[in-house]
Amino acid sequence: MSGNTFGKLFTVTTFGESHGPAIGCVIDGCPPGMALSEADIQPELDRRKPGTSRHVTQRQEPDTVQILSGVYQGVTTGTPIALLIPNEDQRSKDYGNIAESFRPGHADYTYWHKYGVRDPRGGGRSSARLTAPVVGAAAIAKKWLQQQYGTVFTGCMSQLGDIEVPFQGWEHVRNNPFFAASGDAALIARMEAAMDELRRAGDSIGARIDVVARNVPVGLGQPIYDKLDADIAYAMMGINAVKGIEIGAGFGAVTQKGSEHGDELMPQGFVGNNSGGMLGGISTGQDITVSIAIKPTSSIRTPRRSIDKEGNPVMVETFGRHDPCVGIRATPIAEAMLALVLMDHALMRRAQCGDVQVATPDIARGLS
Amino acid sequence: MSGNTFGKLFTVTTFGESHGPAIGCVIDGCPPGMALSEADIQPELDRRKPGTSRHVTQRQEPDTVQILSGVYQGVTTGTPIALLIPNEDQRSKDYGNIAESFRPGHADYTYWHKYGVRDPRGGGRSSARLTAPVVGAAAIAKKWLQQQYGTVFTGCMSQLGDIEVPFQGWEHVRNNPFFAASGDAALIARMEAAMDELRRAGDSIGARIDVVARNVPVGLGQPIYDKLDADIAYAMMGINAVKGIEIGAGFGAVTQKGSEHGDELMPQGFVGNNSGGMLGGISTGQDITVSIAIKPTSSIRTPRRSIDKEGNPVMVETFGRHDPCVGIRATPIAEAMLALVLMDHALMRRAQCGDVQVATPDIARGLS
Amino acid sequence: MSGNTFGKLFTVTTFGESHGPAIGCVIDGCPPGMALSEADIQPELDRRKPGTSRHVTQRQEPDTVQILSGVYQGVTTGTPIALLIPNEDQRSKDYGNIAESFRPGHADYTYWHKYGVRDPRGGGRSSARLTAPVVGAAAIAKKWLQQQYGTVFTGCMSQLGDIEVPFQGWEHVRNNPFFAASGDAALIARMEAAMDELRRAGDSIGARIDVVARNVPVGLGQPIYDKLDADIAYAMMGINAVKGIEIGAGFGAVTQKGSEHGDELMPQGFVGNNSGGMLGGISTGQDITVSIAIKPTSSIRTPRRSIDKEGNPVMVETFGRHDPCVGIRATPIAEAMLALVLMDHALMRRAQCGDVQVATPDIARGLS
Amino acid sequence: MSGNTFGKLFTVTTFGESHGPAIGCVIDGCPPGMALSEADIQPELDRRKPGTSRHVTQRQEPDTVQILSGVYQGVTTGTPIALLIPNEDQRSKDYGNIAESFRPGHADYTYWHKYGVRDPRGGGRSSARLTAPVVGAAAIAKKWLQQQYGTVFTGCMSQLGDIEVPFQGWEHVRNNPFFAASGDAALIARMEAAMDELRRAGDSIGARIDVVARNVPVGLGQPIYDKLDADIAYAMMGINAVKGIEIGAGFGAVTQKGSEHGDELMPQGFVGNNSGGMLGGISTGQDITVSIAIKPTSSIRTPRRSIDKEGNPVMVETFGRHDPCVGIRATPIAEAMLALVLMDHALMRRAQCGDVQVATPDIARGLS
Repeated sequence: MSGNTFGKLFTVTTFGESHGPAIGCVIDGCPPGMALSEADIQPELDRRKPGTSRHVTQRQEPDTVQILSGVYQGVTTGTPIALLIPNEDQRSKDYGNIAESFRPGHADYTYWHKYGVRDPRGGGRSSARLTAPVVGAAAIAKKWLQQQYGTVFTGCMSQLGDIEVPFQGWEHVRNNPFFAASGDAALIARMEAAMDELRRAGDSIGARIDVVARNVPVGLGQPIYDKLDADIAYAMMGINAVKGIEIGAGFGAVTQKGSEHGDELMPQGFVGNNSGGMLGGISTGQDITVSIAIKPTSSIRTPRRSIDKEGNPVMVETFGRHDPCVGIRATPIAEAMLALVLMDHALMRRAQCGDVQVATPDIARGLS
Repeated sequence: MSGNTFGKLFTVTTFGESHGPAIGCVIDGCPPGMALSEADIQPELDRRKPGTSRHVTQRQEPDTVQILSGVYQGVTTGTPIALLIPNEDQRSKDYGNIAESFRPGHADYTYWHKYGVRDPRGGGRSSARLTAPVVGAAAIAKKWLQQQYGTVFTGCMSQLGDIEVPFQGWEHVRNNPFFAASGDAALIARMEAAMDELRRAGDSIGARIDVVARNVPVGLGQPIYDKLDADIAYAMMGINAVKGIEIGAGFGAVTQKGSEHGDELMPQGFVGNNSGGMLGGISTGQDITVSIAIKPTSSIRTPRRSIDKEGNPVMVETFGRHDPCVGIRATPIAEAMLALVLMDHALMRRAQCGDVQVATPDIARGLS
Repeated sequence: MSGNTFGKLFTVTTFGESHGPAIGCVIDGCPPGMALSEADIQPELDRRKPGTSRHVTQRQEPDTVQILSGVYQGVTTGTPIALLIPNEDQRSKDYGNIAESFRPGHADYTYWHKYGVRDPRGGGRSSARLTAPVVGAAAIAKKWLQQQYGTVFTGCMSQLGDIEVPFQGWEHVRNNPFFAASGDAALIARMEAAMDELRRAGDSIGARIDVVARNVPVGLGQPIYDKLDADIAYAMMGINAVKGIEIGAGFGAVTQKGSEHGDELMPQGFVGNNSGGMLGGISTGQDITVSIAIKPTSSIRTPRRSIDKEGNPVMVETFGRHDPCVGIRATPIAEAMLALVLMDHALMRRAQCGDVQVATPDIARGLS
Repeated sequence: MSGNTFGKLFTVTTFGESHGPAIGCVIDGCPPGMALSEADIQPELDRRKPGTSRHVTQRQEPDTVQILSGVYQGVTTGTPIALLIPNEDQRSKDYGNIAESFRPGHADYTYWHKYGVRDPRGGGRSSARLTAPVVGAAAIAKKWLQQQYGTVFTGCMSQLGDIEVPFQGWEHVRNNPFFAASGDAALIARMEAAMDELRRAGDSIGARIDVVARNVPVGLGQPIYDKLDADIAYAMMGINAVKGIEIGAGFGAVTQKGSEHGDELMPQGFVGNNSGGMLGGISTGQDITVSIAIKPTSSIRTPRRSIDKEGNPVMVETFGRHDPCVGIRATPIAEAMLALVLMDHALMRRAQCGDVQVATPDIARGLS
């Protein structure tokens, strides 16, 4: 209710602040009988962790995860799985100068006005560091969905500020520091130069991230409110810094005609995927395609006008370690959120309709 | 859990199908002691109802609402408020021809595969008709928020297919059949002509809708997951036919720098509103600004390729009464969803933090 | 959240007051594909309805139920099922005299202090009349559980004031006005005489009700908090006038030794059922046995000391039509609550563990 | 949904198993601005911890609690509070002999049949050890309720097997190992002798626990389903080994007449408290009085008939360290559950009705 639990049947309750002793989560509702160890989770955390290139925050966090419960002799028992990730590289003094004033574009202002108290160290609870437990939890969901239905998740950065990244294939994503689905070395170099320039200028930039789920079971999602797309929108907008979401054709649908937008069906398969894999809030079995807009980091070295707690005008600069583009590390996070939504709906579908008829239909794989 | 209840503290549980005897909802959590009668609700329903111009479906439904419970001597009692809206103009034979095959872009396919049974009359549960009870429920939320905080909601169509509608003022919205915030008669004529042409062609078109909440209390929203923006995204994507959502700068944030995006603060007020009225998932008190993309109606007279339940190829045309642009009637619906989200979070804030410090701060009204 | 929705996966949201135009509920989460009509529901409502003997309230309500949604061509579609039951025999003037003061033992006092407003007509929302929609919803759950697992529900009154009713067989329950599982005509006559005497005296009396579910699937219930027994206790205490609950050995367990209480297992079956069919919060497959204590009706003709809204001393007598023993009609209600709990947990188990291994094990039927 | 979260607005999500590395919980919804440190929590844990007398399990656990999040500079921030309690004295070999068979009266059987996998070490998740995090969470709720409304919680053992303990005053509870509210040394000696005899015999015994909340705000509780008494029943039945619950007059109400049961009101106060402090599911402000029946421990040294996983007959004896009467340590646990329920409803009431009119009314303190 206070918003720190994600999901209904596969729930993830996170805790922790950027500079507290530890962050973590409790996952409730994982089906019993699945093999699970830290080795299933750590690789996903490593994809998200800071300090992996000069283009992200230089905070050094190994993000080593420990499973505290819910697994016995290497197998899930159906009881809550608690994940613990110690914080190791806190430098709280970095934030002393912003404890009394509000960074433009930052949660400082609203936390203060809502709660009347605020942990300013590293953004406290509002830090993107809190996506780590989510990525950990989603690793478990990914494994289950993959085993059960063959569902797989991929994501990439498709735009960095003004630089668009034409899709060339998922295999490129791991070979550059931006999660770009491109093998174009010149383009990557341009992105690196742009980031270097930003860092020198003490500024930040936005990005667009695309995520796709493949081999999705048909029939996930509720018809009204808890539509699969509604829950995906909720999940994505729950990621720090997201300002926009598109599913399938997205805002492109505004100028489409019905005769163009509605994906025709042939016995061999759907013709096109303007729907992004959902109709009436329920998965068709086609690829689920989602795009999100990430705003530029608000913690920047550029001096900006603001006020302090008493309302006096001040200039604010932020000197701590920050991502000049939070979008860079957003790809594994967006995949994680998508996986959590699908996991939750897979269990819901099972509750409602039993185990029947859930596989991805051939028609969905056909032509789209 | 099965998705037919919206909200957590101010909950709206809807029921009904397009061609059943009645539709309606149960509203639970309305604070006691507010004056309420059907006259508070009917005007909102009238804004949404079909048959009001030649550009929307010609189904004739008065959408007369009856309050069945929760109000005693004209005052809410704190118990559930049930709203009943009879269906009066069902013509189920109109849909006979699509009972056995799937309209491209329609929920037909997914309902069938999820439930193994489907009410094809008017789209059954997937009909946009089911937004009527929501609009009714939101009328109650709007009244309470208005009385409590002065919060008001406005919306408009800002784009119809390729035709962009520059904002000229909210006062124009009531003076044309499109909810366009424009007094430009030539532009309205162009929109009318475009719609007439579409209707002749048996096709449909998408639209963009903008909604704004003003005089929003500061401090609504939970920091993680149940962010105010996340719940707004969920609510908007829960409206039939929505494919994209933007909050504040939206996708424009992708190409912004941090020094440009983060709204500066001065003692007199916020400078700009790229945030759309939320920071860290919590309302700042500034206007909340949301934009949504509505896809073109999938029920069109243009013949399209599809399959029947057995997988055989068929051509599908839809002859029933339909909105050639569902976006036209989407404005009051989008306002309604926004009102429901704010209502829910207003009650949540009260639970968490009591009644203190909730008013809209002057700084939020200052410069934005 | 405001308490008018029962259940998590099979949810029942009720609405209405004793003397409003109608009462009813919305059932969300009913699995699709089950044959359903009013004829499945009405008999259960008839078992609970008022006016069936001189020992219950003389209000004449046919309690005729109408299904408004969720069923197409006689089959559930997986969408919400709305039930409507019109109120027909309201006599609101009966209650005029208690609108300004509080009946001892009645919700009058607390509704007034909580909400600051109160519908005094027939107890408004606090009337036991509001159990009718629940009984209707449970008829659907009963049908599904019976078809799926063979689960059946029976209940009886085992004590009326000081009169204990030794169990002689379920077949007797329908043959007397008390739901007594006894064929002892003298005992029934004693009960009738006791009730006649009470009615003459303008007083009321408590009762004990026993309910049993047979052929229960093994594995229903969550280990902590949402234990099956915890949810049963919640459900039973949610019935008007219930003051105590026992499961299995109940308070008898206080004086038992572990060597006596713990039900032994043999290959042919459990030896005894002190557990009442649950261990660790999860069903064993044995009969689920529950007992509840019903307090005497607080609306009685005997004058009693009380205060009015201003705190002045008054004498209160209640002249409306009331059950001198609400326990009499509580049997079908208690069965209904038990059925709703099992239904909810059956769907939950399916979500968590799939469809496997759910049948009632032979060992549970063996010796208990 | 999987049952490991307690509460709706003040939620407690627990994790851990008896012999895992740690147990703990995440508390979400604690209002911001309250002073809090481990010193507020540890004393409650110490009341519950094992090894404090020869009459409880000899497992040596300091149950030292660590706050991992949600508190900044000694003050709650409104974000989740994670509590961690390491397990230190696991001796898993003790349980080797019961891994393949089912203890009569124990969750072994149902966990196995539900999940198909089971952590047998110390009962795994079904161990009463898991009440420790709950007691820790409740310490926070107790502090808040005490500060806000002056609400205090007390509990005692009122019966140990056949030995009834007449209430002599709350001050005695801390002076004997049984939480008995009696200063009768002879009675305490009789209880000690009974326990010594049981231990020698390798058997166990049941108990009755009474808990009371005083200075309860008026108006807590929802009228239907989420009645305060229903949520209390749910909470109490969620404690390991509880088989019965009474509120106020409890099962005594069965033989009461309405003219006897309904507590009269006088301007100076309620006359009696048969209601146990609730009418119509809502608190009156009177003391809330609850009684629970605790069954005898199922893990005993006495050999008993059972079966193994394959259904073969076996004799089972349990040799680990166990409480011969789990009721002894149940008093602080029952207080904790009651505190959690009241906390949740206090926040709910605030959501629904704002901060007004919540104090305990004088009339409630008057004569009861």
